Amino acid sequence: MSRSNLAPDTALAARLFDDLRAKSFDGVGITREAYGPGERMAHALVREAAEALDLDCEADPVGNLHMVLRGADPSAKRIVMGSHLDSVPQGGNFDGAAGVLAGLAAVAGLRAAGITPRCDVAVMAIRAEEAGAWFPTSYPGSRGALGLLPAGELAIRNMATGRTLAEHMVEEGFDPGFVERGKRVLTADNTAAFVEVHIEQGPVLDAEGIPVGIVTGIPGSRRHRVGRVHGEWNHSGGTPRRYRADAAIALAEFAVALDDAWGRLEAQGHKMVCTFCTLATSPEAGFTKIAGEASFMLDIRSVSPASVDALFEEVHRLVPQIEARRGVRFDLGVETGSVAAPMDAGLRAGLIEAARAGSVPFLEMASGGGHDAAAFNAAGIPAAMVFVRNQNGSHNPHEAMRMEDFDAACRVLTRWLVETAA
Amino acid sequence: MSRSNLAPDTALAARLFDDLRAKSFDGVGITREAYGPGERMAHALVREAAEALDLDCEADPVGNLHMVLRGADPSAKRIVMGSHLDSVPQGGNFDGAAGVLAGLAAVAGLRAAGITPRCDVAVMAIRAEEAGAWFPTSYPGSRGALGLLPAGELAIRNMATGRTLAEHMVEEGFDPGFVERGKRVLTADNTAAFVEVHIEQGPVLDAEGIPVGIVTGIPGSRRHRVGRVHGEWNHSGGTPRRYRADAAIALAEFAVALDDAWGRLEAQGHKMVCTFCTLATSPEAGFTKIAGEASFMLDIRSVSPASVDALFEEVHRLVPQIEARRGVRFDLGVETGSVAAPMDAGLRAGLIEAARAGSVPFLEMASGGGHDAAAFNAAGIPAAMVFVRNQNGSHNPHEAMRMEDFDAACRVLTRWLVETAA
Repeated sequence: MSRSNLAPDTALAARLFDDLRAKSFDGVGITREAYGPGERMAHALVREAAEALDLDCEADPVGNLHMVLRGADPSAKRIVMGSHLDSVPQGGNFDGAAGVLAGLAAVAGLRAAGITPRCDVAVMAIRAEEAGAWFPTSYPGSRGALGLLPAGELAIRNMATGRTLAEHMVEEGFDPGFVERGKRVLTADNTAAFVEVHIEQGPVLDAEGIPVGIVTGIPGSRRHRVGRVHGEWNHSGGTPRRYRADAAIALAEFAVALDDAWGRLEAQGHKMVCTFCTLATSPEAGFTKIAGEASFMLDIRSVSPASVDALFEEVHRLVPQIEARRGVRFDLGVETGSVAAPMDAGLRAGLIEAARAGSVPFLEMASGGGHDAAAFNAAGIPAAMVFVRNQNGSHNPHEAMRMEDFDAACRVLTRWLVETAA
Repeated sequence: MSRSNLAPDTALAARLFDDLRAKSFDGVGITREAYGPGERMAHALVREAAEALDLDCEADPVGNLHMVLRGADPSAKRIVMGSHLDSVPQGGNFDGAAGVLAGLAAVAGLRAAGITPRCDVAVMAIRAEEAGAWFPTSYPGSRGALGLLPAGELAIRNMATGRTLAEHMVEEGFDPGFVERGKRVLTADNTAAFVEVHIEQGPVLDAEGIPVGIVTGIPGSRRHRVGRVHGEWNHSGGTPRRYRADAAIALAEFAVALDDAWGRLEAQGHKMVCTFCTLATSPEAGFTKIAGEASFMLDIRSVSPASVDALFEEVHRLVPQIEARRGVRFDLGVETGSVAAPMDAGLRAGLIEAARAGSVPFLEMASGGGHDAAAFNAAGIPAAMVFVRNQNGSHNPHEAMRMEDFDAACRVLTRWLVETAA
């Protein structure tokens, strides 16, 4: 082992980023359809690179690609690094792909240094993570491999094609029967750790001037995706203040009051985000009318369930107050949500140690969005994430990432990998 | 003259309301297209009834129908009563038509009582008052007769048909050249008064339990019909509070703060209405996004320009405050509006006297919406309005009016008419 000249092969990753971009540019941004042509292309491209590195490549029955550097002890639990290769329509090139290519860069670094790990080290290209764009569920690819995908979800329809998840799996040459039979590929018994590198998707690292984030946890959420306010349609000129039941102003008051409550809770030490993703009078609203109906989509997230619950208490306190004061009726609709996933303490400590040893500045921070790492956590497999500073947010064509920041994250990952697996 | 048995012919009006409804029911509500088939039908129906009363009927060059009971002195200034016969799509039967049929009921009452007025008394069926639905301008019919319609507005396009006002006039057999040549039919020299009966369109009379309103004035307005808030699109999970420029919350804060300011000004004695007719995140907003853009339509009205201006000072005070606090930019867009039209003091006093003499309970009140009476006021012709209590607002299929309330308004109008013209 010659750890002294150990370095990730960031040049390989840079070349693959360029190839991916060239093959999935849609004229506006990047489109890699989950269980569709864009994702298929990306898996083939990455597999070719992995085979050139002499990794053992195998797709599992739901289509995730495992690219394995064999270790000295084939019976030891494997270490998995990776992320997803699909994108939202007209999205960016780095969301997801960065985690797969960071894994390949790290493994290529071990190969170049002549290091044989003690256990198998796998780079995993996961299927269909971009739930909001293609299949309206969370992590069907990783959950499929982990035995956490209920068979009923195979009937979920792709929002773009209208065909089911099972149909898409079959079209790509995979086997939804694997899910129906309740099988799994990865378990806590055969997998020691999952580490996912990912662009931050938010502005924090860029604003703080820090290249890398070590993630403390993936937030849970409580949501009302289809909330409504029912008031009374009236003439805007002919209806004095005291006769109004204005759905627009009632909704605005709710949004502002909840936003204020969020600010107060943060001042008390809570950490969370609260967003009215949409907020709108209904389409028949218009000139000379007082809005009789309005709708909203509310999304509250935190790594701490207690913080989410504290703000939800405000929701349920505010609604009847505003109903009484404004003469309107709120219909919050169905509440949906997800459970928070704390990142593994041991993995976090190891990644922090690797960052310090490599003099890579880092920030400990909560994730904003959900990630496949949450599915590994749910399966009882220790999971952690490394964020890369990025610009212009994510899920849009302007998404950006500097290769020097990606290299910093790869150095943390590679140093952690060699300390853990070699 | 036998004033003792003088009464409006409300039965005639009731029959005409029924005929109008039968011929303009669209399956949901009432549709009488301005300068189109619905309005044409209504003019023909009303003309037939007027001719049966032996009134001299003549359409003016822009299509308004004048149904005249000749007076003893043909050189005396005429008295005009009326309103419009068009409706919004899927609207109600009484909005507009009530004023024309009240005029006919009053004139029929004079005829039945054998009264010959000292001056000509005309019932005027006005064209195209429902600006929001057909031609996006105010009062083209009455302004056309009064010489107040700029020739340039002949090029305005009907929102339903896409054809110009001039084209519609020609199709209905009228002469837009009359407007181009700057001509007029009605002036302060030939017209002594215009009195318009109209349903209230608001809930005040119904809530107060009073059948009739004597209108103090028609409000002026200041409007921003296409306002925008520009923030930053970001990930709802990944963007902490302090990094946000949330257009949705900024707009909500603006709406609530302006609504509060309205409440404070009313408590100080101002009378006005302030409405966010629409308020909405832009269509690309949705799940996991912080809204980067939102839009609104703001409508502030009062009979008192000082009150509108006081609230507009709040608009211009609040906008920079919210911009600074929220990191957003407001684009208020073009300001439009209209001038307030106070109703003639002498006519108001005469109508009040008529109501008192007939023991008709009444409320003095400002109009909410705009009406053709505002155009007469602008032309220097004394104008006044009588409101009829109505239910379920206006501009919708549920608009309602009780015939006993209409009869009360007709009795006020008839008594005023006979005192003024006989």
